[in-house]
Amino acid sequence: MKSITKYLTFHTEKRFKLINITPEIEKIVRESAVNEGICLVNSMHITSSIFINDDEIGLLQDFEKWLENLAPHAPTEQYLHNDTGEDNADAHLKRQIMGRETVIAITKGKLDFGPWEQIFYGEFDGCRNKRILVKVVGE
Amino acid sequence: MKSITKYLTFHTEKRFKLINITPEIEKIVRESAVNEGICLVNSMHITSSIFINDDEIGLLQDFEKWLENLAPHAPTEQYLHNDTGEDNADAHLKRQIMGRETVIAITKGKLDFGPWEQIFYGEFDGCRNKRILVKVVGE
Amino acid sequence: MKSITKYLTFHTEKRFKLINITPEIEKIVRESAVNEGICLVNSMHITSSIFINDDEIGLLQDFEKWLENLAPHAPTEQYLHNDTGEDNADAHLKRQIMGRETVIAITKGKLDFGPWEQIFYGEFDGCRNKRILVKVVGE
Repeated sequence: MKSITKYLTFHTEKRFKLINITPEIEKIVRESAVNEGICLVNSMHITSSIFINDDEIGLLQDFEKWLENLAPHAPTEQYLHNDTGEDNADAHLKRQIMGRETVIAITKGKLDFGPWEQIFYGEFDGCRNKRILVKVVGE
Repeated sequence: MKSITKYLTFHTEKRFKLINITPEIEKIVRESAVNEGICLVNSMHITSSIFINDDEIGLLQDFEKWLENLAPHAPTEQYLHNDTGEDNADAHLKRQIMGRETVIAITKGKLDFGPWEQIFYGEFDGCRNKRILVKVVGE
Repeated sequence: MKSITKYLTFHTEKRFKLINITPEIEKIVRESAVNEGICLVNSMHITSSIFINDDEIGLLQDFEKWLENLAPHAPTEQYLHNDTGEDNADAHLKRQIMGRETVIAITKGKLDFGPWEQIFYGEFDGCRNKRILVKVVGE
C-alpha cells in the first residue's frame, strides 16, 4: 500500500470565498503514483468546507446567497457562540451544509470524475491562513 | 490490496426521484471478493446525491417536500445560474444538503450496516442518463 | 493491509444530544497500530450523525436551535413518515444536514487533525441504544 499526505494553505481576502482547487489535487495524485485507490481531501478547520460541484460563476454566487439565507452572519448576537467574542458562528453552520471532506476514487492513476465534477475549497470565515489535508492511499 | 470499480447508469422519468440502490451495491461487493475494506459510492453528476437513510415511503415524500422548501425549483429566475439557459440551480443546492458520496465499511465480506441503513440515489434533475461510481478497496 | 472494526453504543437521556467522542476514536486508532491510512466513523442508525466541528458549549446550543428551525420536530403531523406511528421524521432530516459519517486521515499513527477538529456523535432521536461503527484501514 502506498500513501502520500500533503497540506495546502489558503488565505482569502474576503470572509466568504469558493475556490476551485482541482488542479492542485490532480498534481498530488500524479505525484503519489497511486493507480487504484482513494483520495481524501478535507478542511482542517471547522469554519470551511471541501465539496464537489460545478464551476459556474452564477452558481457560485447562488451558493453564497443561499447559505447566507440558511445560516445568516448577522445579527451576530443571535448565536450563543459569538458571546465568546468571536463573530463566526454562522461559518460553523454553513460548513455543516457544505461538508468537511470528500473521498474521490482514483482509477488508472487519475481522479475518476464525471464531466462537471470540480473540487472546491469553501471559505466561510477567511482573511487568515487555513489549511486543508490531502491524503492518497492505494497501489 | 484488491480493488474493483463499477459504473451504474440511471435515467429517471421524473425530475425528482429517490431510488434504493442497496441490492446493486451488495452485488458489486460480493463480486469484489473483498473481506475487509471500504466501499465508496458517489454520484458522478453535480445535481444528484448518494445518501443513506430509511426506505419508508412517507419519509421519501417528506424529503422531497423538505428539500423543495429549503432549495425551491421555482421561480427559476431567483438563481443566477439559470441565466445560462439551464433551470437546475435548485438541484445543485439540494445535492449539497443530501451529499455527493458515502463510504461504507466492508466487514467479513459484507456491507457493515445497521438494521435500517439503505443506500439511495437521489436524483434532483432527472429525465436523462446519469452515472454513479462504486469503488471497493480492501483485502 | 491492516484493519480493525469496533462498535460503540450510546444511550442518551434526551432526544437531542451532541457528544464529543474524540477520545474513544483516538483509543481505537492507537489499538489498530495503523501508521498511515484512514479511519471511517459512521452512525449505524438513520436518525443520528457523525460530524466534525468545534467543542464549544455555546456553539452546540446554536446547532440545536438552528437544526430545530430547519427541520422542526413539531407539529409532528406535518410529516407523512409520522403516520407510521413514529414521531421522528425530523431526526431523519436533521441527520442529512449533519451527515452520516466522517473519514479521517491517519498520519504517523494519529488522527491527522487541525487544532479545533473534534468528532461528535449527534443524536436526534435518543433515549435508546444506538451504535456507531469505527473502521481503521491502512499499514
